[in-house]
Amino acid sequence: MLAARYAGDGTMTVTELDPLPPGPGHVQIAVAYNGICGTDLHILHGHMDSRVDVPAIIGHEMSGTIAALGDGVEGWAVGDPVTVMPLAWDGTCPACRAGNRHICHNLDFVGIDSPGALQGRWNVDADLLVPLPRTLDLKHAALVEPTAVAVHDVRRAGLARGDKVVVIGGGPIGVLIASVARSEGADVTVIELDDRRRSAVAGLGFTALDPRDDTVAQVERWTGGAGADVVFEVSGAAAAVLGAVDYAKVRGTLVVVAIHPEPRPVNLQRVFWRELSILGARVYERRDFDAAVALLDAGEIPADALISATVPLSEIQSAFDSLVSGEAMKILVDVQAGQEQQ
Amino acid sequence: MLAARYAGDGTMTVTELDPLPPGPGHVQIAVAYNGICGTDLHILHGHMDSRVDVPAIIGHEMSGTIAALGDGVEGWAVGDPVTVMPLAWDGTCPACRAGNRHICHNLDFVGIDSPGALQGRWNVDADLLVPLPRTLDLKHAALVEPTAVAVHDVRRAGLARGDKVVVIGGGPIGVLIASVARSEGADVTVIELDDRRRSAVAGLGFTALDPRDDTVAQVERWTGGAGADVVFEVSGAAAAVLGAVDYAKVRGTLVVVAIHPEPRPVNLQRVFWRELSILGARVYERRDFDAAVALLDAGEIPADALISATVPLSEIQSAFDSLVSGEAMKILVDVQAGQEQQ
Repeated sequence: MLAARYAGDGTMTVTELDPLPPGPGHVQIAVAYNGICGTDLHILHGHMDSRVDVPAIIGHEMSGTIAALGDGVEGWAVGDPVTVMPLAWDGTCPACRAGNRHICHNLDFVGIDSPGALQGRWNVDADLLVPLPRTLDLKHAALVEPTAVAVHDVRRAGLARGDKVVVIGGGPIGVLIASVARSEGADVTVIELDDRRRSAVAGLGFTALDPRDDTVAQVERWTGGAGADVVFEVSGAAAAVLGAVDYAKVRGTLVVVAIHPEPRPVNLQRVFWRELSILGARVYERRDFDAAVALLDAGEIPADALISATVPLSEIQSAFDSLVSGEAMKILVDVQAGQEQQ
Repeated sequence: MLAARYAGDGTMTVTELDPLPPGPGHVQIAVAYNGICGTDLHILHGHMDSRVDVPAIIGHEMSGTIAALGDGVEGWAVGDPVTVMPLAWDGTCPACRAGNRHICHNLDFVGIDSPGALQGRWNVDADLLVPLPRTLDLKHAALVEPTAVAVHDVRRAGLARGDKVVVIGGGPIGVLIASVARSEGADVTVIELDDRRRSAVAGLGFTALDPRDDTVAQVERWTGGAGADVVFEVSGAAAAVLGAVDYAKVRGTLVVVAIHPEPRPVNLQRVFWRELSILGARVYERRDFDAAVALLDAGEIPADALISATVPLSEIQSAFDSLVSGEAMKILVDVQAGQEQQ
């Protein structure tokens, strides 16, 4: 089979490897599609070398079908369409014991800390499988994982029907959060600097604002002077963090979705003055995956608009490069293309 | 009557003024004691000159008895012991309409935005009165307002019995928060840099840590590796904000109590990684005042330990100066001392 591996120094290589049979309790998945995530770009740039054993097969946004069952696997059959919730927890740390296994102190994020989906045949623990309806296109199903992130973020915000929501950042996760929030009955405004992305966001039916305008005044007018109920910071920009609290109403909520590797200046005076809540939100729980599958299957997520391109495994380096340039939203890798039939 | 006024340029002056009769719906209070607050020090230093009309009678932590009733005041009698919840809201702004009147967009904080309690006879709207039990010493009752701040902070944190709590800052508000949290069944550790204050905190039965030690490791050990359920940032120090998130457990809460006039670097990576909540908490609601009165009356608050000194109105400048030096915890002004009998 062919597998794509991060080889260090900003490079992805494609290699022929022998597939291994699935071990007890594991299944072998014929991977169909794998989306490239911002985290994968961080890996490519070497930011996560402390967690990744080079050469590393990465990839964690995927869809596929079961190709083989290991010993003791029950409830699944060869041919079942599936995706994977790529979290393995120890079940014994304080966070797990308190019911927050998705933030296990010793979390194994599959595709980062252990081998991922950018390979023709991928063996995973059957406990991580999430069933897909046969009505769901496997390309769209490759968006289940990032959609589950958005579902988790929106759930964490405690969104209510009719809420006015500001999403800062109109990239893939921003659009997914906006879409999930809209599906929950919220009225959503997206703030995005890039002209093309802003146009794309507007084309999806969201109000799209340019941060070079006086967006605080625009949000004030939109909300009748109250401010937004919920703000999602998805851009990762320091300036966005500093300004984000200015959009929020008294007792409003700011959800920090983007990863900020450096401490960021936060206007705590405003947090105090308006009794704001700033909430961290990380990955997802099983119910977020189930909800994401249902939303995609119901057509509530603009999957086709998010998928900029689908490329074969052999073009993975150029796919990463075009994501780095910011041209594309989401690129799917067609992992089956070019694989030998087995 | 004598009144103490902020006269600008770091000075407080004491002046003889004629008392006015209370207007309709107002009562005249014979002010007994008034505590000097950190906010009063900010006023003295000119930080709030945009809100204060010089010369300004300030003061908002007080106790007294009703001396006269204006027209139309019902339910109160001359001689009733009272304190004042010093918030006047417009009732019409978006925050008021949403039920958050204590964070009214146009809040009048009595004692800052309008005249305060550092005068022998103080006229206030009867709606702001809070009744005091006759069993409660009027000196202790001057602590009702800051205790209500602490009650509000603890309530905002959603504290549960048995929670492990870290309070950063062992000044008056830190000790009040620690005391209120203890009364709710929490196990409390206070982190305080000043040796004398740290000893005083330990003397009140709290675990008291020195921030020059490895307090993160100490809290880790104390909490069995989990981290604290709730952290209160009461110090106002930038370094404390940066480190505060390191004490908190997965899904833990950091309440920002101190005023931070400048944006502060916040470790949002940790907020994300542990799904923390950072909550702003400002002033109080009526039920917080009622709870504060009950706690003081029940002896749950170490009032005598908090009151470093009681001075007559004529010594107010030196009282402010000794607070600036950090020597004292809480200084009460005996507003009746030296007043003519009327």
